[in-house]
Amino acid sequence: MSGLDLELARRTLDAQPFSRLLRARVTEFGGGAAVLEVDVRDELLQQNGFLHGGVLAYAADNALTFAAGTTLGAAVLTGGFSIQYVRPGAGRTLVARAEVVHTGRRQATVRCDLVMVRDGGDEVLCAVAQGTVLSAAPS
Amino acid sequence: MSGLDLELARRTLDAQPFSRLLRARVTEFGGGAAVLEVDVRDELLQQNGFLHGGVLAYAADNALTFAAGTTLGAAVLTGGFSIQYVRPGAGRTLVARAEVVHTGRRQATVRCDLVMVRDGGDEVLCAVAQGTVLSAAPS
Amino acid sequence: MSGLDLELARRTLDAQPFSRLLRARVTEFGGGAAVLEVDVRDELLQQNGFLHGGVLAYAADNALTFAAGTTLGAAVLTGGFSIQYVRPGAGRTLVARAEVVHTGRRQATVRCDLVMVRDGGDEVLCAVAQGTVLSAAPS
Amino acid sequence: MSGLDLELARRTLDAQPFSRLLRARVTEFGGGAAVLEVDVRDELLQQNGFLHGGVLAYAADNALTFAAGTTLGAAVLTGGFSIQYVRPGAGRTLVARAEVVHTGRRQATVRCDLVMVRDGGDEVLCAVAQGTVLSAAPS
Repeated sequence: MSGLDLELARRTLDAQPFSRLLRARVTEFGGGAAVLEVDVRDELLQQNGFLHGGVLAYAADNALTFAAGTTLGAAVLTGGFSIQYVRPGAGRTLVARAEVVHTGRRQATVRCDLVMVRDGGDEVLCAVAQGTVLSAAPS
Repeated sequence: MSGLDLELARRTLDAQPFSRLLRARVTEFGGGAAVLEVDVRDELLQQNGFLHGGVLAYAADNALTFAAGTTLGAAVLTGGFSIQYVRPGAGRTLVARAEVVHTGRRQATVRCDLVMVRDGGDEVLCAVAQGTVLSAAPS
Repeated sequence: MSGLDLELARRTLDAQPFSRLLRARVTEFGGGAAVLEVDVRDELLQQNGFLHGGVLAYAADNALTFAAGTTLGAAVLTGGFSIQYVRPGAGRTLVARAEVVHTGRRQATVRCDLVMVRDGGDEVLCAVAQGTVLSAAPS
Repeated sequence: MSGLDLELARRTLDAQPFSRLLRARVTEFGGGAAVLEVDVRDELLQQNGFLHGGVLAYAADNALTFAAGTTLGAAVLTGGFSIQYVRPGAGRTLVARAEVVHTGRRQATVRCDLVMVRDGGDEVLCAVAQGTVLSAAPS
């Protein structure tokens, strides 16, 4: 990963109004991997005070797509993904770590761990995802 | 579906700060089905001017959960879901229609169609999802 | 659906040794849909006397692929799928009904219902699946 | 993992007629993980000479279930899973390695890598899966 790549990823994320609404940030990008973070705040919660599952699903979708962008190039379309929730989202920051498990010329398959950083700094796994991303470049 | 059920569903949705941030509304609720709508606005888009995939994923997650709530009761936990995107999200309103395909005492399995209502009123399918929701009530 | 199409589908299924091992048959094929059937027999069961989940997964995989073949042509690759089991597989015949929900030039998205025909002829839903199939033809 | 656990897992697999039909074997079992192997032979192939996707799906389903059995106990029900194929199944043996990523009292979430052992002994990733398994024990 070069600093240049991370800078480009940050500009792409910043060009997504919905990612700005959620105040997501990309903290790693390159070599088949990407990390996306979202700080927890009141307006991202569900009715029991946990991070809304939709925020976890957003982070999975976007982290998968960014990770695939490191192998397929900037023009990508997310084909779909599967997410399993394993614990309520409690903590101060959501960290979505995605890693390409296979990439071809037309499609990449990616896995993502979604962890919550607790107040003391501990990390707890809250969801796992896997999905596919297609190249949108003309073949 | 009784008007009372729909009113309860609306209060539940309104108790989710993230659903208020997205200005989601529930328009049908009962008999194993639920419909959730989100009007498109600039801050919900991605970098190419389409509705962000994360908004579709949020709507799938929440519509699946609400539909399962009609058979399992109010105390439910979404176990997970799979979403496949089939077209870019272009239009004025996202409508997520979820329907329970099977319910037991402990778990419901639900499908969801995500359509965009175009400016002329036509509907176009943009994504499909299926998932499972668990009862959180003591057994 | 023409009789010719169904005949071609039968020859394709017959060219799959694993489908012959399971004695699967294709009973409908065309117009974005395909139906695959497998009669229950002892060697397809799991340890509690129900149809093994792997047989349901095989049928989902193959029915999704055949349905996509009606819109994408004969050269297809299954990208992946998600299956949710809702009831134990009890009955005399497994019927997998797959239907394309969207097709492009390069990819189709397909849903599948897996039902068991009970001894009296009643059908009971046992699993639901959805997946994507890619065209393997040169673009 | 104790040798006793592995012996019990082998007896369970042997009690599944469908696993005997496929000649599957369990080679590791314990501590949240399970490994299932299937040797490639003609009757497990599809029409192009590769291992049929249904065999990969069977192996994913069963490896996920066995891995969950190490944390939930012997009485388990597979809730469902998602599988993404990344390469054609070519080689002499399919190895499905499943690992529990989270377990509660009622449910476990599990990931699985499906690799083919080539003739020279190299391993190649052919598919990835993730799923959930429910405890069937009375709560």
